[in-house]
Formats: sequence, C-alpha cells, structure tokens
Amino acid sequence: MSHQGTSVPPASPPPPPAGRLPKTTNRGRSSDPIDSSNSATSDFPELEYFGVPGPRGFPPLTEFLDITDVDMLKSRHGSNMSKHHTMFFNSDNLIVRRGQEFQVKVTFNRPYKPAKDKFALEFVIGSSPQFSKGTYIPVFPNKERQSSWEGRITNTSDNVVTMGITPQTSCIVGKYHMYVAIQTPFGIRRTRRDKSRDLYILFNPWASDDAVYLDDEREREECVLTEVGVIYHGAYDDVAERYWNYGQFNYGVLDACLYIMDRSQMPIANRGDPIKITRKASAMLNSRDDDGVMVGNWSGDYTYGVAPTSWTGSTDILLTYASTKLPVAYAQCWVYAAVFNTFLRCLGIPSRVVTNYYSAHDNNGNLKMDIILDDNGRIDRNRTRDSIWNYHCWNECFMSRPDLPPGFGGWQVVDATPQETSDGMYRCGPASVQAIKHGQICFPFDAPFVFAEVNSDVVFYSRRTDGSMEPVKVNRTHVGRMVLTKSTGEMSRRDITDQYKFPEGSPEERTVLEKAEEYGCKRERSDPSTADVDLVLPTLEVSLGEDFQFDLEFVNQSDEPRTVDAYLSGSVVYYTGVTTAEFLFRDCSVEVGPRKSVKESMTVDSKKYMKYLVEQANLHFIASGKIRETGQIITSMKVVVLHNPKLIIEMPSVGKVNKEMVAKFEFTNPFSFSLEGVYVRMEGPAVMAPKVKYYSVITGGSSVVWTEVVTPQRVGESRLIATLDCAALRQVSGQASFTIEA
Amino acid sequence: MSHQGTSVPPASPPPPPAGRLPKTTNRGRSSDPIDSSNSATSDFPELEYFGVPGPRGFPPLTEFLDITDVDMLKSRHGSNMSKHHTMFFNSDNLIVRRGQEFQVKVTFNRPYKPAKDKFALEFVIGSSPQFSKGTYIPVFPNKERQSSWEGRITNTSDNVVTMGITPQTSCIVGKYHMYVAIQTPFGIRRTRRDKSRDLYILFNPWASDDAVYLDDEREREECVLTEVGVIYHGAYDDVAERYWNYGQFNYGVLDACLYIMDRSQMPIANRGDPIKITRKASAMLNSRDDDGVMVGNWSGDYTYGVAPTSWTGSTDILLTYASTKLPVAYAQCWVYAAVFNTFLRCLGIPSRVVTNYYSAHDNNGNLKMDIILDDNGRIDRNRTRDSIWNYHCWNECFMSRPDLPPGFGGWQVVDATPQETSDGMYRCGPASVQAIKHGQICFPFDAPFVFAEVNSDVVFYSRRTDGSMEPVKVNRTHVGRMVLTKSTGEMSRRDITDQYKFPEGSPEERTVLEKAEEYGCKRERSDPSTADVDLVLPTLEVSLGEDFQFDLEFVNQSDEPRTVDAYLSGSVVYYTGVTTAEFLFRDCSVEVGPRKSVKESMTVDSKKYMKYLVEQANLHFIASGKIRETGQIITSMKVVVLHNPKLIIEMPSVGKVNKEMVAKFEFTNPFSFSLEGVYVRMEGPAVMAPKVKYYSVITGGSSVVWTEVVTPQRVGESRLIATLDCAALRQVSGQASFTIEA
Repeated sequence: MSHQGTSVPPASPPPPPAGRLPKTTNRGRSSDPIDSSNSATSDFPELEYFGVPGPRGFPPLTEFLDITDVDMLKSRHGSNMSKHHTMFFNSDNLIVRRGQEFQVKVTFNRPYKPAKDKFALEFVIGSSPQFSKGTYIPVFPNKERQSSWEGRITNTSDNVVTMGITPQTSCIVGKYHMYVAIQTPFGIRRTRRDKSRDLYILFNPWASDDAVYLDDEREREECVLTEVGVIYHGAYDDVAERYWNYGQFNYGVLDACLYIMDRSQMPIANRGDPIKITRKASAMLNSRDDDGVMVGNWSGDYTYGVAPTSWTGSTDILLTYASTKLPVAYAQCWVYAAVFNTFLRCLGIPSRVVTNYYSAHDNNGNLKMDIILDDNGRIDRNRTRDSIWNYHCWNECFMSRPDLPPGFGGWQVVDATPQETSDGMYRCGPASVQAIKHGQICFPFDAPFVFAEVNSDVVFYSRRTDGSMEPVKVNRTHVGRMVLTKSTGEMSRRDITDQYKFPEGSPEERTVLEKAEEYGCKRERSDPSTADVDLVLPTLEVSLGEDFQFDLEFVNQSDEPRTVDAYLSGSVVYYTGVTTAEFLFRDCSVEVGPRKSVKESMTVDSKKYMKYLVEQANLHFIASGKIRETGQIITSMKVVVLHNPKLIIEMPSVGKVNKEMVAKFEFTNPFSFSLEGVYVRMEGPAVMAPKVKYYSVITGGSSVVWTEVVTPQRVGESRLIATLDCAALRQVSGQASFTIEA
Repeated sequence: MSHQGTSVPPASPPPPPAGRLPKTTNRGRSSDPIDSSNSATSDFPELEYFGVPGPRGFPPLTEFLDITDVDMLKSRHGSNMSKHHTMFFNSDNLIVRRGQEFQVKVTFNRPYKPAKDKFALEFVIGSSPQFSKGTYIPVFPNKERQSSWEGRITNTSDNVVTMGITPQTSCIVGKYHMYVAIQTPFGIRRTRRDKSRDLYILFNPWASDDAVYLDDEREREECVLTEVGVIYHGAYDDVAERYWNYGQFNYGVLDACLYIMDRSQMPIANRGDPIKITRKASAMLNSRDDDGVMVGNWSGDYTYGVAPTSWTGSTDILLTYASTKLPVAYAQCWVYAAVFNTFLRCLGIPSRVVTNYYSAHDNNGNLKMDIILDDNGRIDRNRTRDSIWNYHCWNECFMSRPDLPPGFGGWQVVDATPQETSDGMYRCGPASVQAIKHGQICFPFDAPFVFAEVNSDVVFYSRRTDGSMEPVKVNRTHVGRMVLTKSTGEMSRRDITDQYKFPEGSPEERTVLEKAEEYGCKRERSDPSTADVDLVLPTLEVSLGEDFQFDLEFVNQSDEPRTVDAYLSGSVVYYTGVTTAEFLFRDCSVEVGPRKSVKESMTVDSKKYMKYLVEQANLHFIASGKIRETGQIITSMKVVVLHNPKLIIEMPSVGKVNKEMVAKFEFTNPFSFSLEGVYVRMEGPAVMAPKVKYYSVITGGSSVVWTEVVTPQRVGESRLIATLDCAALRQVSGQASFTIEA
C-alpha cells in the first residue's frame, strides 16, 4: 500500500493561535531549571528516615536529642552585627559577612553529649539546594567532620550550646535559611522552617581572603559604611556638587538588592562572585533589555515620572522597584551611578561614584570625536554628530580579578548608564582601572569603551565642497580632562585623574596610547600644524538669569600681523553635550599685531538664553575662524555652567537620639515669572525617610517654607538633603549637616 | 507671600495612563539617533548649489558634463562577480568584496576631459551618511585627489568612462547606494537614486589585508563558497551525519542576513568589524533577549512550529524570519550552528560547523560536572542535576584578532545556542581556539565557557546520610572526547580535537589546566584512588525498534578475589543528556577471581524503551557499584545511539543544466504501528527550493513515494537532502548526490 502526500508551503505546520508562539518549556534542555531566585525556598522535612521502615514502622526519634530553641543573636548591638560591620542595617534578621565567624545559640532538651549526640546546622539558599553547588551547607561541631564552612562549639552551659560558624570566604551572598538537624541511627530530625532564622551573608572587605578585601580601614568605612555622598557635576573649571543619600542600610533596601538579582534570573550559584554580580547589575540597573531598575530619560519631559534632577537618594527608587516590579522613571547618569553605589555598598562591595569631565560617549570605543567645520572655519552643526558629555558619572568597585593576569585587581569601572553603542548591550564593566591606565584594553570587560571615554581626541575637520574632509586641528587634551570622586572621610573632592591616565605629554602617556592602538583603538594619525593665533575663551561663574559679559581673546604668537575671520556660536546644551538652540551667533574680523592680543567683548543677554533652557542649564560656546594670511583654522570651546538659586535648610547643629528636631526648608523664587507644578523632596539617613511636597504655583519673588519635625534614630553625623524641581527650573538643591548625640 | 505645599507620597507625579510608561525619547541624549539600519536610506539632491544664488538665481548647470547612463557591470558571468567570488549569488544587484577593485561604466553626454571635468562616484550606506564614519565615501578618478577608497579610470572610449573602484579593506559590509556626481563651480549635479545601482560589499577572505583573510584556497572554497555541508551528531564511538543545505547564495538570503543586523540595531559604523558582527550575530540568531531568528525548543512538543530535526537547510528559516519579522520555531544546537554558518558564509566570513562530543553545558565555566551516588554506589537521579550533552554543535569563524595580543587570530568559536548561564546573556564568542588550547582564557569573549565545554571533569560524589559529599571518582577524559568538522573539499569527517586540546596526559595538557585555574576556573582538586575492578560497557550499533543484548563486564585488575555489588540503570535521554525515563534497572552481585573478568549479560527488550522515546533516540546506561573488600566505588557510562530507518532518494547520477530530472523519494514504515501527521521536506542547492509534503498517516509496514521533477540551474556537483518527521519518529533523513553537466 502506498500513501499520497499533500504539498504544503515550507512555512509548514498550523500557525499558532493568535500569531504568537506558545511558551516553550525546557523539558529536554536541562534536567532542572537553573536555580536563580533567592526568594524561592525549599522546605526540608522535619523527619527524614534512612532506608525502609522495619516491620513495626519507623521507631520514634523522641529518645534522641531534641531542640527547644534557636537564637540567631541578631541584636544590632550584639557582637555578631558589630563585629561584622552590619550594625547600621535596619533589618529583622541576622546580617553577617562571609569568611568571618558568627555565633548561634541552640538550646536542647537536655545537655549535649559530644561523644554520643550528632547534630549539624544546615544552611540553605534557593529552591534547589545542592552541596556541590554551595547552596546546601551542613556545618558540624566536631573537628573530625568539617564541610566547606567551619563549625565549632564556642560555649556550652547546661542545655545551651553556642556554635561558631565561619562561612567560606567565597560563599554565595544572599539570604539563607538555617535548620538545626539531629542525626540519629534511623534518620534526621530537623527544626521547622522559621523565617526569623533567615540570615543574610554579605561580602566582606574586612576578610583578607575575600575577593573584595580592601586593606584600608578608612576606605572601607567610606566605600561600604558611608550613607551620604557627594556626586560632582558642572564643568571641570566650575565644579558643582550634589549630595546623595545612598541609604544602603534602610529597611528593605537589602531585600530590594537581592530582588534585582532574582529579577535578572542570575543563577544563585554565581552570587558569590563580585565580577559576575557587578557585571549583571550594570545591565540590570537600567531598564533596557531586561526591565531593570531605572528608565533613562534625557528628553526634558518627565511628566509621568520623577525628573532625574529631583531625586535626593536611592531608597525611594529601590523600594519602588521592588514593590511595583516595574522600572522606575527617570534616571540620568548620576542617578544610575548613585543607585548602583547603594546596591554595591549594601552587598558589601566597596564602591564609589566618580565623575569624568568631558566624557567621550556613544562613539563605540573609537578614540575620535568629530567636529565638522565648513570651508570658512564655521561649525557645521548639521554634520557634527558626535557629542562630548560635559561630565559623566560611573562607579568604581574594589575587587580582585582572578580571571585576569596579575596586576589588574583593585578598582574596577562599572557603569549602569545605558550606552547606545557599547557592544550592543546596555551594560559596562567591570573594567580594571589599572588596565585602562596602561592601555591593556584587551582584557574583559568593556575596557576599550572606558578607555575611549577618558582618552579620545577631538578632531576638527574642514569639509570641502566635494564632500571629502581634512583634519585641521586635533585637540588631544579636551576629553577626560579631570576625574573626581569624594574624598575618604570628608565632604570634599579628590582628583583621581592620575589613576586613569599618565600626565599629559609624558612618555608613559604616549606608550599607553600606542598600546591601545595595537589593540584596535582607532586614532586620528594626522597632526595638523598648530595655528599661530590662539583663541581664548573666558572662565566665568554666572547665575541663572544673569546678563554677563563674554570676551573673545585673540592672541597672536607670531612676529607678523594676522587677520582673523572669526565666528562665535553660543548654544544651550544638555549635560550630554547635545545642543538644543543656538541663542547667540556673531562673526567678526579682527586684526592682531605681531605678539599682540585683541579682545572682542560682547554682552550675553539672559533673555536670549532663558527661553531655551533645559534642565541642566549649561551654555556651550564654540569659537572658530580662519587666519587670512595662512589659511589656518583656529578653534576653541567652553562650557559655562549657570548657577541655580539655592534651597536653604535650617537645622540646629546638634540633636539628640529619639528627641524631636525641627527642620525648616525655605526657597524664594528669584525670577519675575511663576514656577508651576513644583515638587520638593527631602530626606536624611536615620533622620527622615524620603518625603515629597507639591506646590502648584510659586509666584515670582515669593517664598515657600516647609517645616518638618524629625526624630534622629542614632548617634553620629547626619544630614538632610533637599531638592526642588519643576519644568521651568530643575536641579535646585540644598543640604544641612548636624550632629546627633546620645 | 508664602505658599503652602501639599504632601504627596514619595512615588510622586501622576501615574502614567495604563500603568505603563510612555516611550521616552532620546532628545537630549545624543544629537542624532545612532544609524543602525541598512535598509534606511537618505536621498541626495540631484542639484546641490554652493553659496547663495546671484541676482538672476543660480545659473543652469546644463553646460557642464551630463550623465546619460551608469552600468554596474553586474552580470553573473562578468569579471566583477567572478573575480570577486560572488558568481554563485542569485541577486539582481552587483555583489563585490572589499579590498579588491571592481569596475563601473559611466556614459556621459560627450567625451570626458580629465583636465576640465570633475566628477566623483559617491557611495552611501545608511540614513545618516558621514565621511568620518565611513558611511559616505566619494571616489575620485584622479591620482591627486583620493579619499579612503581608491579610484582610477581603467578605460575611456568615446563618451564612456570605466572606473575602477577599490573599497577600503576595512570598510563597512552591507548594501550601498551609488551616485555619480559632477562638480561644477556653482554646485553639484547628481544621478537620481536608482535601486538597480545598489551594490553589496562583502568581507574578502581573498584580500591579504582583510581581517578575514584566509591564506588557503581550498579552505576558502570550503568555508565561504560551499553550499552543502555535513553536521556530525550521534556519539563519539558511533558518529552520525546530517546533510545541510546552507543556501548562502539563494535569492533573498543576503538581504535576510542584513535584516538580522538591522533588527539587532547594530550601528552601521560597526559593520566592517568581523569581531563585532559575529558577536552580535551569536546573540541575534536565537530569539532570547532580542526577538532574534530562531526559537529554541527541547521539549519534544513542536506543535506550532517545525521540529528541529525536520529542517533540511537554512533558506526557509532565514527567508521566513525576514518576511514575517518573527522568530522562527524551532531550533536546537545544530540548527543554530547551521543557520549561523549560512549567515557567516553569506557575508564572506570563513566558517564551519563543529561538533563536540560530550559537551559540558550550563555549568557556568566551572570545570566540574557532578554525578551523585548514594552510600551504596547507586546513582541518585534526584540529586544529579548537571547534564553532559551527548554532543553540541557550534561554529568556528576565521579572522584576525587585533583586540588581543598576537597569536590569537585564526579560528574563533562562536555559538548561537542560548546557554542558560553564560554570563547571563544568550550569546557566546568569538573566543580564540588558540587561546582555549593554551588555557589563555583571560581574553574576550566567553573563553572560560568554551574551555569548560571541552575540558570539564566528571566528578562522582558519594553522598553521606548527613548530606555531606565525598568525591569518589574523577573522570578527566569523558568531556570533550572528540571535536569533528567536515573535511575540506570532501564529504568526510575531520578530527580537530588537537586544535582544542593537547593530548590527554601530556605535560602541555597539565600546564594548560593549571593556567586555566589561575584564571579562576574551578576544578576538583581531589584525586580519589582508582578502584582495582573495571566496569566495561559494550559499544553497540542498534537499530530503532530492535531488541539487543547488553553485556556488563567486570575486570578484576588485582591479585585477590573481588565481590562487586553493582547497579545498571538504562534511561532514554535527549541529546542534551537530560534523562526522561528509566526503562531498565538491574542490580547484581558478582564475584570475580584475581586477574579474571566476568560478564553479566542481559537482553534489552525494545518494548521497554520504545514507549519512552524522545526525538533523538539515545539510550544512556550508567553502571556503578561498590567493591565489598575495599569499599571503593566503580562507575561507567555509555550512550547507545539508536539508528533510525532511512529515507531513500533515487536520482540519475548525471543531469544537465536546464534539463528536467526526476527525483524519487521513498520511505517504508518499518514498525507495526502507524505514523501520523508526517512531514517530509526536500531541497537541494540550485536544483530545488525547499518543499514540504504532509502525510496524515503512514500505516505500519506501508510505504510512501514522492516523485518530483527538478531542473538544475548550474553546472557542478549537487545534492538533494530530505527529512521525514512526525511526533513518533524524528530525525529520519536521506540524501542523493549527482553531477550536473553543461
């Protein structure tokens, strides 16, 4: 017998119901789903018999040792928390660090007899505990029988045994559950699952064999325990500060950080490795690809979220993400860096926020940013598409790099701001700062990209009418002008440029750039002759709304007279270097005698720029021109930061724990126009949880006052941080510091 | 005046309309959207005036040179296509390779006068052409004025000028548009946009300074031009073959490959770099993360798609993806590797599919696969969660690695099969094969992961009743037993294991493993003593549905008698090593005299395993046991591949171009049961496009015959490949080869 087939189109089988493919399973793919949730748990049985029951069933286990109580010794002032540097955490559970002993008290129904009684503490993480994956760890009290975590009895009195447990220094970081198990000849008898016995194990920068060990107590205190930080912005010659409440010890923040890893489906077994955790987190903190924590928005329109300039700390963002399970709107680079910092410090990975002034971006690791001029030396804004960020913030975190050759441990760059073209993925790092300084960019992860951020050249091209272009000036010092971070233990800035680069012009710098080129970085090789007339732009401090004078200076370095046809263009720019509107354009012809200089002065009228303002009110000036005698092109660039009005917070300078204090916040609208839809936020560590007030209008010249009664919760230096935000005026902030005494 | 604010919850502003965030724009983020679509174009004006019009407007440009015709010389038999090794492409446009001259004929309205007339050919790619990004390239005919692509006049006769153009060897790969532009003192006059002048520029393995240069003509022909390949599967001691029609030259396939890059939003400017392209493609070929080309499915249920075992080539998959813009269902590892191979060969990157037997998977770069035995030496299937794939297919592609130190160019591993735990992303590579062989796994990308796939140890643990485990046997040779690829120029296999590993037991092998450990790979350090009784399992060739005999041999290597308590467990496994059901379990106690061996024979009844069959019918046997005298644990594993019935394709061995030939396909159901819902697919390069037939039922013992009339399109060796697929019987295939004469 033979069958006759029917022809079907190659796209073959029946189409799925609604044009969508059904969810496929992993049945034949892996024997178990990968264990990637720290919130998932597995319950262990209270009674677990060995073998098969005898003719009368299993014997009762009651004749053996029984457990009447387990005390996790989790008091904030107890020795576990203080010895483990976790006493600031606001949590209901024990929090300790790996590679260091902690104590647990077990009470039995009768005195423990070491020779006869066998028990173990069992630590379990995730839904699929396995000894060989480090997700199930029994800890034994006797020397002869030890597993990967050390155990010993540190005290015995009556029925009570105190066990010292030292988690392996490479163990998984997260939330564990603990059981006490009594072993009998017939089976195992366990404590019941009890959430109050859950404990968190964190990274330990104090343990010398931990991958995040940092051998400097002041740095550890700064980069792990400090809750308030300063993030730098503005311009390299007019640095501005932003205070931030990292809040890594606030209630719920640690759980939110673990939720982020769960959400990313990061396998539990990887969570002891700071390289894998930081790489994963750099992807997860932005919402691209993976519905991560924060939505980036640089549009100026923040209607359905919080303006990036309005946040005062990380707590709100992390708790909102963990509770809504939706990305939080909105972030820009310093928000990404600040929340990432909270994540890292919370888990115990030393970290800090750094700011790079004039950061090359989105240019895919090439060492060139292009500015196109026309035949006459005037900037061609349509063809100039690269932008140099006035500043960019990222994080450094401290860890060893066993995956790389020796010498590349220490500070590592990680960056959660979504980069448009970094290897196509919205994540970056960890990249060794040492490797970047030495041009050793062949090692993972994303080193060429970070190298370009601090080392790109700005290349000015002159475009001919036939479309071809010629480089006329190469500025090799503009990008990566300065890298700042907060000083250790102080509210001041620290210049760490030398950790990223050798001094400009040094032989080492040259070697490094050649090394980077060997690894495929493309540089502009041509070296157009330097013009003999300099164009100098002024350094100014200008308040928002102020008219100001702007001088364009021509300095003739030659022994002959020079005539320059020059252009000055002023635009309002985002901090990303993207220009919005040209508010000023001037051309002039200037004659300069030999070895002389000439100034062209002009007044910039605030009315001209005020109408174009975007949130971070910066003005970008580009001057360019052509020297008639030589045909050479000259250029110069300058960012002028407009200083915003300030918020004032008035507080007594000293307070007492649990005693009310009054904080007074005040703001006066300095403009003639009304501010509408104004949000004010205020918070402070261990003093005040984030609070928001809304003012529908603040008329021109008028003031708002907000008085808040706060209750400090613990001794030490503290601070209140506030911002004011509305569509017409962003990035207004203020802060006050004070001391809390006992 | 003072305003009173209202308190609002910290989650502040009005919630977005339907709980979802509005689409945010990139306005202040980058000055231009990143140009990432090769299908987007920008139209250049036909007339582009310089400066401003005079009092009478612009002068007419008609007095200058005018273009009457442009001939791209795109005939398949013309010198452009044959010199560029692109003559097999079925396309309406010119296809050439970079770094090598091609010719274009321009006809003017009068003879061209080199001294007076100025013209250029302009090549443009993407929507935002820029000279400095390599997306706008003018090419000039005169020596004095040359841009990044060389131009010269190779012939002039009457009004016709033939231009030779040599694209830079690092230029972007993709579809360009070409304009002819005449430059006059008043402006530029251009040809109109004409799609027939679009041309494709590909990688060039024949050009010595191309990053994909491969200095071996036979390898280039195999790895770029060959359309049919063999992919190996089965077991290392019973290798099976699968023929595949890569179809890289079929109509529409090149456009589909460019669409894949567009869909991935890969910036156009990166598309000259084979490292970036292959990395991106390894992510894009699977649908995870990015709605890429193929949906993986290992569930056994392929109701709403095509079973992975049913495909005969890549064309269907790529064309369906490009037209529906939806992921195509379904793929498993060899399908990913085969379609990736088409993508690479189509773009001109030399590539081949390799098969690794016993591939360690999903274990995150650790060098350990765990098998858990109980106290008695019997396998604990609940606790054994790692699976070793019987085989795994990936790709190698050939390129230089300027991003790495010297010595790591050449073959690179890329893998599009979504790995559950590879750095959390569903992509892998390029990883240098040289680097893997030498344990230099500190270099990007994903080298530790590939290293583990070929070098992991299998560790047998004995689990004590208290939950702790002890390694009792370490098998260091099981994983990565053999790596195969197709021979160059022949349909036979080539063992390339030595390209990945030094010989087992050699001093180099030891050094390499130590090097890998330095870079953080975790190995099992313990070395349990080897037992003195060997357990030997037979190597068998078994046909599906056959009963067969299975011998378990105990070889006593000691001088004393031994008693072994042994267990034999037989399971049906997916090729991923995941077991479905245990169809056989036997225990026995065997006494073996000194230096003697004993065989335990058993018959495996086909009824027992047939009911559990999954698509790739493999049986997995694990034998284990404990020696009474010494307490040592012994183990052994074996995969038995069940051989499927074959399809028979009958064809004359010789045919003629454009002359009809008859192909007869025949299959007999060898079973007593009916096969239902049967799909048969057949295709062959330049002979037959993929075709599918459906048979609702093929009763037991009956046959189906499909007669197809085909018309060969070109001279050479060709082949028809067919598969038969239904839920009860998968992976049935057949093929026939024949010669086409002129």
